Amino acid sequence: MGTGYSIRRVERQDYEGVLQALSALTTVGSVSRTQFEETVDHWNHVKVSSEPEILQYHPYVVLHGEEVAATGMLFIERKLIHGCGLVGHIEDIAVSLHHQGKQLGRALIDHLTNLGLRHCYKVILDCDERNVRFYEKCGYSRAGVEMQRR
Amino acid sequence: MGTGYSIRRVERQDYEGVLQALSALTTVGSVSRTQFEETVDHWNHVKVSSEPEILQYHPYVVLHGEEVAATGMLFIERKLIHGCGLVGHIEDIAVSLHHQGKQLGRALIDHLTNLGLRHCYKVILDCDERNVRFYEKCGYSRAGVEMQRR
Repeated sequence: MGTGYSIRRVERQDYEGVLQALSALTTVGSVSRTQFEETVDHWNHVKVSSEPEILQYHPYVVLHGEEVAATGMLFIERKLIHGCGLVGHIEDIAVSLHHQGKQLGRALIDHLTNLGLRHCYKVILDCDERNVRFYEKCGYSRAGVEMQRR
Repeated sequence: MGTGYSIRRVERQDYEGVLQALSALTTVGSVSRTQFEETVDHWNHVKVSSEPEILQYHPYVVLHGEEVAATGMLFIERKLIHGCGLVGHIEDIAVSLHHQGKQLGRALIDHLTNLGLRHCYKVILDCDERNVRFYEKCGYSRAGVEMQRR
């Protein structure tokens, strides 16, 4: 990452910055400060295993000084297959409009991927067809089709 | 589902049946009875919210009498976007070789999807290109590309 940028877990005080960054990605809707703090507390609390202690949710922010420039999530799913294996899911990667074009998405993906591969036999994510090239540059390859029902 | 079939949450005593069903899907690897029971206990314990109380993992079996004929998982992810929305992920749908061709996969998907849509603004899953038609019949539509890194 460029000068002045740093990365850390999301904290309770990141309310405005995280919601603003996410609004560059999709509909955030109505989220109060209390709801945000409760969600962050939940993310910081739930474990996928106790020995070794592995948290289930890994929400991160890229900061520029004290400003949230990007955010992204890795969460870990506990399975039976692959010898009670863990799978990492990367979700909701968003870069604030003021900080796009600075490879922050790439830095965030690399960080979350490395974190995931420490514990998981694979890390997966879903993306638009137009972002496949970007994720290939991050070391990912096509694995299947994402289907949804609303 | 046909006569003699029923559906319920996975329980600790389903060790052999669940692993056998999963082996029709992928590599299960070495999973001891103790590891299985610990995993089921974890799934039965972790909540995605406390009020209303919503469990995070929803592992199900289709039984034929007392035999496990199929298994599948819905797990729920807690997000910020969409007004602190929940997203359901369907994973690891497996039908035992002796019970294939009896629409058990369809019954399981319908069950997990309905469960998910009670709480979540969407339910997603990843599948092979050759299974897209099946999931379209289940009411799903294409949403994106699944990428993976191992």
